[in-house]
Amino acid sequence: MKYVIIGGVAGGASAAARLKRLNEDAEIVLFEKGEYISYANCGLPYYIGNTIEDRKKLFVQTPVSFGNRYDVDVRNLNEVTAINRDKKTVSVKNLRNGKEYEEKYDILLLSPGAEPIVPPVPGIDLPNIFTLRNVTDCDRIKVEAVDKMKDNASAVIVGAGFIGLEMAENLRRIGYDVTVVEKAEHVLMPLDWPMAAIVQQHLKDKGVKVITGNGLAAFKGSEDNLVVVLEDGTELSCNLAILSIGVRPNTKLAEAAGLKIGEAKGIWVNEYLQTSDECIFAVGDAIEFPHPVTGKPYCNFLAGPANLQARTVAMNMVYPETVKYQGSVATAIAKVFDLTAASTGLNENNLKKQGIKFQTVITHPAAHATYYPGGSPIHLKLNFDPETGLILGAQAVGTMNVDKQIDAISLLLKHQGTIFDLVNSEHAYAPPFGSAKSPVMFAGMVAENIFAHLMNPIQADELDEILDKGEDINLIDVREIQEFKTGSIQGAENYPVDELREFLEDIDPDKKTVIFCEVGLRGYVASRILMQSGFDEVYNLIGGMKTYRLIGRHLK
Amino acid sequence: MKYVIIGGVAGGASAAARLKRLNEDAEIVLFEKGEYISYANCGLPYYIGNTIEDRKKLFVQTPVSFGNRYDVDVRNLNEVTAINRDKKTVSVKNLRNGKEYEEKYDILLLSPGAEPIVPPVPGIDLPNIFTLRNVTDCDRIKVEAVDKMKDNASAVIVGAGFIGLEMAENLRRIGYDVTVVEKAEHVLMPLDWPMAAIVQQHLKDKGVKVITGNGLAAFKGSEDNLVVVLEDGTELSCNLAILSIGVRPNTKLAEAAGLKIGEAKGIWVNEYLQTSDECIFAVGDAIEFPHPVTGKPYCNFLAGPANLQARTVAMNMVYPETVKYQGSVATAIAKVFDLTAASTGLNENNLKKQGIKFQTVITHPAAHATYYPGGSPIHLKLNFDPETGLILGAQAVGTMNVDKQIDAISLLLKHQGTIFDLVNSEHAYAPPFGSAKSPVMFAGMVAENIFAHLMNPIQADELDEILDKGEDINLIDVREIQEFKTGSIQGAENYPVDELREFLEDIDPDKKTVIFCEVGLRGYVASRILMQSGFDEVYNLIGGMKTYRLIGRHLK
Repeated sequence: MKYVIIGGVAGGASAAARLKRLNEDAEIVLFEKGEYISYANCGLPYYIGNTIEDRKKLFVQTPVSFGNRYDVDVRNLNEVTAINRDKKTVSVKNLRNGKEYEEKYDILLLSPGAEPIVPPVPGIDLPNIFTLRNVTDCDRIKVEAVDKMKDNASAVIVGAGFIGLEMAENLRRIGYDVTVVEKAEHVLMPLDWPMAAIVQQHLKDKGVKVITGNGLAAFKGSEDNLVVVLEDGTELSCNLAILSIGVRPNTKLAEAAGLKIGEAKGIWVNEYLQTSDECIFAVGDAIEFPHPVTGKPYCNFLAGPANLQARTVAMNMVYPETVKYQGSVATAIAKVFDLTAASTGLNENNLKKQGIKFQTVITHPAAHATYYPGGSPIHLKLNFDPETGLILGAQAVGTMNVDKQIDAISLLLKHQGTIFDLVNSEHAYAPPFGSAKSPVMFAGMVAENIFAHLMNPIQADELDEILDKGEDINLIDVREIQEFKTGSIQGAENYPVDELREFLEDIDPDKKTVIFCEVGLRGYVASRILMQSGFDEVYNLIGGMKTYRLIGRHLK
Repeated sequence: MKYVIIGGVAGGASAAARLKRLNEDAEIVLFEKGEYISYANCGLPYYIGNTIEDRKKLFVQTPVSFGNRYDVDVRNLNEVTAINRDKKTVSVKNLRNGKEYEEKYDILLLSPGAEPIVPPVPGIDLPNIFTLRNVTDCDRIKVEAVDKMKDNASAVIVGAGFIGLEMAENLRRIGYDVTVVEKAEHVLMPLDWPMAAIVQQHLKDKGVKVITGNGLAAFKGSEDNLVVVLEDGTELSCNLAILSIGVRPNTKLAEAAGLKIGEAKGIWVNEYLQTSDECIFAVGDAIEFPHPVTGKPYCNFLAGPANLQARTVAMNMVYPETVKYQGSVATAIAKVFDLTAASTGLNENNLKKQGIKFQTVITHPAAHATYYPGGSPIHLKLNFDPETGLILGAQAVGTMNVDKQIDAISLLLKHQGTIFDLVNSEHAYAPPFGSAKSPVMFAGMVAENIFAHLMNPIQADELDEILDKGEDINLIDVREIQEFKTGSIQGAENYPVDELREFLEDIDPDKKTVIFCEVGLRGYVASRILMQSGFDEVYNLIGGMKTYRLIGRHLK
């Protein structure tokens, strides 16, 4: 059996290795149009920022070492230019000598990846405008940005997604003055605003300028002075610009060959990762696949799922229709200076767009036992279905232990887990590692209280709408008087929770009542007291002052 | 409704708070025989070792602050001496004044905890022999071990469980010469030997003396020179000894009241955490409960489950039979100097005792992408059912990211997860946090290869049995020649994996063949080549040289 694989990075190389392990007699040809195979894509920003100092570390395998180990015919710098399904061949151009030839296949695997989106704005072809997708891009940036770095160098990063912010950190690290520009209303759009606001503030604290709600309009200027022009006319002078607006699935070859392209514009595959042609399979950033929660196809551009797809597809290429790929819930993470930001599943934007009803919990638990030194808070947002308790998505930001919260929720998400599963989850606890109630358990408990109508939630933006309208409500800060004095919400009265029972008669039980504390726990205790003392309508501010301080508009 | 709660630490205090939130009109009396309630039990070793400097940090709540917030009648230093089920009262002794009285209840909750096992050996009443279970114990140790610390002070810790090793680290930290004595064959018996061996070596590297397979026989000596006598006659002089042999459920009151005690010697409860008396509930270290994997009752002594039980029982005490407790898979963790050691589910001892068939995978993945600086290996052992793929238990040791591996497996264990779920798990990946294939995913993949008979595993001890017998096998080291030269296994021949295909004719395919490499990956690749080249019986050494070097007996 002869297998031909197009693309030698994550998906293609892993699939080739597994194919050979499954079938020692397989004849495998691996085409890669670039020079390198199986390299550390996700490490590129860190090599630019000198966090990774040795370029060699980026390469897991060379074409020769990989070819030897797996008895694979690796043809790097060979670009596949067409798939000829009728003949079961691919047309190839050897980029070393320009020669063109055809290669037969019995089974073909497409792993062409994704390509960076480059908007067709004026001046886009000026020098010193870069995208970062592969080693060649990386080497170019390294030369221009690092080797030729000028005094007082500055960079503009267009697009504040995970990779944009990794680049912001790494360029700052080597001394650049960095401005991040984002067309959307905030950085890190996979995160909802209460979580992204923390990251945005941190970027500013680290000296990164952040411009949001303002897209790229044009580039102008010269080699020594690039000017980034934004939609509102703002001009940003810089030495170089990085475009990290996003990527799109590379479907060129597949489309030209008449393979089915799906509604999310990725290569369509079935659950065995087989395209609309039964002899052609596809994996990685180029495919779309149904989301396990919504059932709707989407493209993700993540290394973990690509690796799993490679393993899965190899099995199905050797033993047809044996292993089903289960899809990805888009779990992602980035280090942003001292912070970690991570997300899984659906955010509010996704949920609203798809018309899915949801409720939200925001908690600020300690990363580990508060009495053990060195801790810091985690900010965790959980989106769930208020009618079934199904987990829909989660996001977390903090300086430590953020990854393990999102990993745990990600695991449950893939299995249609509920907030009750979060409550009943079990984790490894000792003071240096966590708390007896883990952050995810705790978020589940808050969600369960909402589900069971033990607590009525109100979000910061919902409270602001009420305050904007000047509605007549009881707004009660149940923190200690010293906390209240350091700042609260406009119009709030202070009744510390531990004395609330004594002052019940001072509060009008017929008015809508909104309670808040620092994080939400005392607010919950207070709301229970009022709800059981004849108060009609009692709400607890989700995330408390810690969230309101970041995103609220009626601070006093 | 009047609720009486016995025990004011984790379970009791949490339940009281939840009870009040569920029912503002509830009358709640909380009895605690000690002075303190709701304190940081798990932090005590760290206070002794000055990691936690401020004693006040150990107290989450005082009896007064807790009483105020939750309107609970907190009676610390009041010991319940009997439960009078016929009258629905408890007999109480006020330890402040010696007065005895009775208190009525409608619903009673037992949260008496566990008590340290103190073996009745000669000399057990000598001074400077301590157990560590509560603040009073802790204060005593702090005075004798820290305030009165002598020059060249030494301590013997009897029992090398999680708490014993936490004490070893903390006493070492303040300058003690520490010897740990363990009757079992190795430290940390929740871990299997290949994992525990790593911890044991690390303890020695940190200057802790470790004596295993040797139990406590007696104490002798004077206040200034305590002598610990071991079963084999060894005498260890020291300034103080800590007994951390284990704990047993405190069932005295329950037993005297005629409540059912279960087969694991804990208070028997049903899934609503109700004892054999429908008006009496129980939670925490004193109860036993069926293990979700085996269905057999056992006692665990863990803070996480106790907190969850408290939440669950409060609901059932107010709204009968509403929430089922799902049991615990005994997930535990400890910091041991620079290492983290964690476990979940069943280890080999448990599995053998219960006659459960299992297979084992040991991997040594990097804690995060190897090209990103600051990484280190994780050692992960997975026990699973070779016929169904059901996860049975796991253990991990390493310097970072150990907790999140065990958390992930723990979550799956509670839901009858399989090795296929591990393979299909999704995690948050970026180079600072992990690898595209997470350690649990990777362990699942290895297990799946065994399940699918793509690889035949052999464990280090099984190989040693073969070598002991002098059986005639092909023993092949497939690492590079430089690696082979630094040390291998007696009788091994070296055929580097990347050249193996060229030398197939040199190896007798009819002999049993055992292959090994450094961690197991190249061994797997090599075993696939041989298995598909006419070799009858090919085994890959699980954990490779990394495991064999620790526990193997035929090193060369």
